[in-house]
Amino acid sequence: MTDAYELFYWPSIQGRGEFIRLALEEADAAYVDVARRPEAEGGVTAILKLLHAPGIAPIAPPFLRSGTLVISQTANILLYLGPRHRLVPTDEASRLHAHQLQLTVADLVAEVHETHHPVASSLRYEEQKPEARRRAELFVRERIPKFLSHFERAVEASSGPYLFGDDVSYVDLSLFQLLQGLGYAFPRATSHIAPRVPALVALCDRVRERPRIAAYLASPRRIPFNEDGIFRRYPELDREGG
Amino acid sequence: MTDAYELFYWPSIQGRGEFIRLALEEADAAYVDVARRPEAEGGVTAILKLLHAPGIAPIAPPFLRSGTLVISQTANILLYLGPRHRLVPTDEASRLHAHQLQLTVADLVAEVHETHHPVASSLRYEEQKPEARRRAELFVRERIPKFLSHFERAVEASSGPYLFGDDVSYVDLSLFQLLQGLGYAFPRATSHIAPRVPALVALCDRVRERPRIAAYLASPRRIPFNEDGIFRRYPELDREGG
Repeated sequence: MTDAYELFYWPSIQGRGEFIRLALEEADAAYVDVARRPEAEGGVTAILKLLHAPGIAPIAPPFLRSGTLVISQTANILLYLGPRHRLVPTDEASRLHAHQLQLTVADLVAEVHETHHPVASSLRYEEQKPEARRRAELFVRERIPKFLSHFERAVEASSGPYLFGDDVSYVDLSLFQLLQGLGYAFPRATSHIAPRVPALVALCDRVRERPRIAAYLASPRRIPFNEDGIFRRYPELDREGG
Repeated sequence: MTDAYELFYWPSIQGRGEFIRLALEEADAAYVDVARRPEAEGGVTAILKLLHAPGIAPIAPPFLRSGTLVISQTANILLYLGPRHRLVPTDEASRLHAHQLQLTVADLVAEVHETHHPVASSLRYEEQKPEARRRAELFVRERIPKFLSHFERAVEASSGPYLFGDDVSYVDLSLFQLLQGLGYAFPRATSHIAPRVPALVALCDRVRERPRIAAYLASPRRIPFNEDGIFRRYPELDREGG
């Protein structure tokens, strides 16, 4: 297993780590989800050790160890994995474009987190509910439509069936995860907007049906969504949207 | 001027565009700050045109046009510019590392924006002051120390004088801008933490004294900080911090 990637991410949530897991699964890459191993073989302790390692340690999971490299920041990890597993085209314009879209996915993911933590990550949701309600109302009305329309246009601009043509890219996988997460956290808002982003929805359906992705989703490796992750179902934050 | 880069960013603020301007200035690259030109030669209209262009248009400025490429997302633009202007080392590990740090700068910049817009970007600050006050208090106490300590460790891990050794990188320039912005927006908090991040402060002093950066800062091209940008001085949000 020494050639396997080591993924370091919280073992009980999908969170940002899920964007990496999906890429590794689609690539059929050998990887160890270190913190999901027993403590003797890694566990959460392995994350904490890396966070406090001397030198330029990462600031937060996920991080990926590949040989001597330790890479963090979700989009940066995908930037690294993409070319190695043909999850992005080879030309520079497409790579920059894929990364740009991925960074925009990251922006939306951060905003999703802010809907339940608009004051501080260090406080519990229950300590910031009024602020969360106000933020989520505008998030659903303004931000979900803005971002999903942006991605819809990106899908429409492609010849299909995927964003960069015939081959699936890590961005397609991330858009699938994004829509899954929004559908979990904001089912009313997501149902409401879905008819207005048909190309995006169809793309995500294609991703879901890919053999390796389907097998992964049906496996115990796929952690269910829950209220410790980024996408949380708090019905009081969900509305029909804009 | 056809070989010059074209930068598209709001003409009256530093904002995220400033991280690009600093890299272009340090590189002595030929560039046109398009939206600062008269409308006949660009102006804000040029930004709006690109935002509504068919195909995979960017979602928000800054964007950089380089030949046939239009690149957006600040960190992505720097990822592109870095190798072209020797603002990052040539080896893969350093490049991934630089980008990782840049994405962490971007995370902190986004959090700075949230201090005055904790509910929604579409509302004015005056419409979200109670939430801003609560958020900023925790930002100053918890987040500034967390991020700046992280960058301090990164600087300490280098042999110096810059993050990647003898040559300045785009990340050094961005850390300088970050500290300038924090010092403007949160002067009390920044003064309070400065003695605890001496290596970072010294690094930023070195950046400021570089001839091209010093010339740029003294020129009319450097837009002063103001309360339309990301770093805003609202004294009621500034405290001594953690």
